[in-house]
Amino acid sequence: MTQRLVVIGGGAAGMSAASAARRVDPACEIVVLEATGHAGYGLCGIPYYLAGLIGRADELLSYPPTYFRERRRIDLRLNTRALALDPRRHVVHYRNADGGGRLRYDRLVVAAGGAPVLPPLPGLDDDRVVTVRTLEDAITLRSLLDAGRIARALVVGAGYVGLEMAEGLHARRVEVTVAEALPRVMPTLDEPVAALVADEVRRHGVDLRLGTRFDGVTRDERGLIALIGGEPLPVDVVVLAIGVRPTADVAARAGARTGPGGALLVDEQMRTTLEQVYAAGDCIAPQHLVLGRPAYVPLGPAGNKTGRVAGTVAAGGQARFRGVVGTAVVKVFDLGVARTGLTLAEAQAEFGARAAATDIVGRSRAKYYPGAEPVTVRLVHEVDGKLLGAQMVSAGDVAKRIDVVAAGLQAGFDLDDLLALDLSYAPPYAPVYEPLLLAAQAAGTPSNRVAV
Amino acid sequence: MTQRLVVIGGGAAGMSAASAARRVDPACEIVVLEATGHAGYGLCGIPYYLAGLIGRADELLSYPPTYFRERRRIDLRLNTRALALDPRRHVVHYRNADGGGRLRYDRLVVAAGGAPVLPPLPGLDDDRVVTVRTLEDAITLRSLLDAGRIARALVVGAGYVGLEMAEGLHARRVEVTVAEALPRVMPTLDEPVAALVADEVRRHGVDLRLGTRFDGVTRDERGLIALIGGEPLPVDVVVLAIGVRPTADVAARAGARTGPGGALLVDEQMRTTLEQVYAAGDCIAPQHLVLGRPAYVPLGPAGNKTGRVAGTVAAGGQARFRGVVGTAVVKVFDLGVARTGLTLAEAQAEFGARAAATDIVGRSRAKYYPGAEPVTVRLVHEVDGKLLGAQMVSAGDVAKRIDVVAAGLQAGFDLDDLLALDLSYAPPYAPVYEPLLLAAQAAGTPSNRVAV
Repeated sequence: MTQRLVVIGGGAAGMSAASAARRVDPACEIVVLEATGHAGYGLCGIPYYLAGLIGRADELLSYPPTYFRERRRIDLRLNTRALALDPRRHVVHYRNADGGGRLRYDRLVVAAGGAPVLPPLPGLDDDRVVTVRTLEDAITLRSLLDAGRIARALVVGAGYVGLEMAEGLHARRVEVTVAEALPRVMPTLDEPVAALVADEVRRHGVDLRLGTRFDGVTRDERGLIALIGGEPLPVDVVVLAIGVRPTADVAARAGARTGPGGALLVDEQMRTTLEQVYAAGDCIAPQHLVLGRPAYVPLGPAGNKTGRVAGTVAAGGQARFRGVVGTAVVKVFDLGVARTGLTLAEAQAEFGARAAATDIVGRSRAKYYPGAEPVTVRLVHEVDGKLLGAQMVSAGDVAKRIDVVAAGLQAGFDLDDLLALDLSYAPPYAPVYEPLLLAAQAAGTPSNRVAV
Repeated sequence: MTQRLVVIGGGAAGMSAASAARRVDPACEIVVLEATGHAGYGLCGIPYYLAGLIGRADELLSYPPTYFRERRRIDLRLNTRALALDPRRHVVHYRNADGGGRLRYDRLVVAAGGAPVLPPLPGLDDDRVVTVRTLEDAITLRSLLDAGRIARALVVGAGYVGLEMAEGLHARRVEVTVAEALPRVMPTLDEPVAALVADEVRRHGVDLRLGTRFDGVTRDERGLIALIGGEPLPVDVVVLAIGVRPTADVAARAGARTGPGGALLVDEQMRTTLEQVYAAGDCIAPQHLVLGRPAYVPLGPAGNKTGRVAGTVAAGGQARFRGVVGTAVVKVFDLGVARTGLTLAEAQAEFGARAAATDIVGRSRAKYYPGAEPVTVRLVHEVDGKLLGAQMVSAGDVAKRIDVVAAGLQAGFDLDDLLALDLSYAPPYAPVYEPLLLAAQAAGTPSNRVAV
C-alpha cells in the first residue's frame, strides 16, 4: 500500500519536506496544500524584488510548480488552505476555490510558516496597507512602484524586515518614514550596535522615528493618512513589518503542544506531540543550543533544514536537526549587520552578572590595502570566558565572519579557543589580526569589558 | 637588576615579540637586531606595493622605527646581522656598518624569518634577478617599474608568492611569463582545484608555463636572457619565487633542535631546546593540529602570534600558541583561493585509504541576487566522516568561508557537525544553503566522493 504524506504549506520548509520525502521514498504519494498561489520561494528575496534588483517575481522561486509536479511527482495544490486537523482519524480539512474537502494522511508535515503580526488598529483593511509575507503581497506592491504610484511610504517597525523594506523603497526613490515604537532599531542587537544601524539608515535620508507609536490609518480626500506619534502623515502606502508569529493554530487546535511565541514544539526528528505529525519552518520553535531550550527564531536556513528533516523522517528516512544558535545577517544600505548566539541583554537575562561583553573596532582588510573598512565587533561571553555570542557591523564582510563565531558556539568554545583560531589572511581579505581575534584578545582583560 | 631581552629579527614576529615583552615588563631592556634597513612590516603587502595599489613603502610598516624606539623603548638596531650565538655564555655576535660586536642576553628570541630558496644556477648574481623577501628588494623593483624600465618579466615559481607577483607585475602592464617546474600551480592545493587557478592566470594573459625548468640567466648585448625549458627568453627582470626556507642557522649551529624543513622546534611557549632561547615566526615549525606534529607553514598570522607568545613568555608573562591548521588564502586576479587543513594528497599520504574528498559547486549569494558567483568547494575528510580540510575557489568570498572550516578543524568536527552549523543567510551575502553545507551534505553519500 502506498503511503500518503500530506504537507501543509508550500513555502521553503514545506517544499523542502516534500522534496526530501520524494528522495527517501520514490513510491509514496505526496500532497502539498498551499494557501497562496505560489510555492517554493524564499521570502527573503522580496525586498530586493521590490527594489528592482530582481526583474521578475518568478526568479524568486526555487523551482516552478511544474517542476515539483512533474519531476518530483508532488501533488502541489495551490490556493488551498488547511483549516483543521483530526489527528485521531488522520484527516486534514481544507478549503479551496471549489469549496473544500478532506484528505486522509498517513504522515503529516505542518509547515504553515509564519504570519505578520497585525495590530488591532483602525483602517488597516485598506488595500494600501500591506504586509510583505507572501509573493502576492510583493507583486502588488511592486506593480504600484513600477506604475509610479508610490511617492511616500510609511514602514511600521524597524526590525530587519522593516529596514530591508525601507531600503528597497528608498532604492525606488520613495520618500520613506520608518516608525518604531521602541526607542531603538533591531531588538535582535544590543543597543550600542543597533545605534550604528540607525545612523546608517538616517545617513541615507530615511526619516527614522524611534519611540514613535503607530495608531492606524485614516483617509481624506487626497488619500491615506497614517497616524504616527499622534501626528498625521500623508502616505501612498503603509508597510507593516512589526513581526512574525507562527501559523501553528491548525496543529495547536488539534492538540499539538506549543512553546515560545505559540510555536510548535518538536524533537530532533521534527516530531510534534501528535502521532505521525511532524512540523518544520517558521511555525516551530527549534532548540536554541546556547539557551538550551526551544526558541522562536523564524529564519530561512533553519526553515529549509527542518523541512528537509521533517520530510526525510516522515518518509521513513533518518535525519535530525540539532537546533540553532541564533545566527542572522542583514544588509542595511552599505552595512552588513550580523549576530549570533545571545546579545548581552539576552545573556544578562539568562546568566545575570556572569554575562559580559567586549567591544572592539578592527578592520576588514590589511590597513594599507584599498577599501579596508572598520569592523565593529561585540563579543558576548561569560566572565570566566565561555563564548555566548557576537555582533558585527561593517561595510566590509561580516556575514561569513559571524559564521566563525557560530561554529565556535556549536563547539562550546571559550575566549582562548577563539584566540587560538588559525584564520585566513591575505591583505585583500583580512588584516593579519582578524577583528574576531582582536575581540577575543581584548576580552581576556576584564578592564576592557562592557559594564552595563 | 634590569634584564636584557635580545630579539634576532625585526620582522613581524620579532617586533611582535619585542612589543609583547614591553607590555609584560615595563622595565626590561629590549634590543632588536635587524639585518635589513627596515623593521616591523608585513611581507604580504609587497605584491600590492609593486602593483601600485599602495603608494609608499612606509605604508607597509606597522609603525615607524621612531615609534618602536620612543614609545615602546625598544633599542631597534637596523642593518645589524646576528652571526652566531653562544648559548652557554648568553652572548650573540653581530655585524653592522661599524664592524660588529657581541651582546649579552638574559633571554633571547630568535625571529630571523625565512629566506628565499636560491637555486645553484648560473647568472643569479645579476642585480636584475631579484627575490621579494625584503622591503629593500621591493623598493628597488618598484623604482624600476615606476621608471618604465620593465617591459618583460619572468617569474620563477607558481606558488602563491609567484602568482601574486605575476598579478602585481601584470597590473603594471608588464608582459609576464611564469615558469614552474611542476606540472601544476600551487602545490598547497589539490590538482583539480589548482587547475582552476591556472585557468584564471592564463585568462588574464599571463604566459604560464608548467612543467618548465628554469636553468639560470645569461646576458647578451641587448640584456638579460632567462633560460626556461631549454629556450632563451629575453627579459628585463627575473623574480625568483621558488619557496622559502627558515633562517634557523644561527640557532641551529648553537645546538637548537630543528625539525621539518630545518625549522626550529618549539613548545607551546615558544621555547627552543636551548636554555632561555625562544623562537617565533618563519624560522620555526609550529605544531600542525591536524597532523599532530610540527610542520613548516610560514604565514603571517602565526608569525605575529608566535612572536607575541615568545615575547610575552620571555619577559615573564603567560601565553601559549597551540598551533596551526594550515589555513591560507590568496587573491589570484579575480579569484579568491583558500585552503585549510590537509589537501586530499596530504591526507592520503597520512591516512591512506581512510582519506576521501567531496567536490561541489555552490553559490556565493542567493541565485537571484545580482553578483552571485560559483563557489567551488573540495571537502577533505575521513571515510567515516572526520573533517580533515577544505579548499575553496570563487570570485565571491572564500576567505571567511574557509575560516568556518578552520574553526571546525580546531574543534574536531565531523561532517555531521559541519552540516549542523547555523550559518548566516541573507540574499546579498549567502545562499540559504551555504556551499560548505552543500559539501557536507554531499560528502555524506559515499558515491559522491572523489576516488583517486
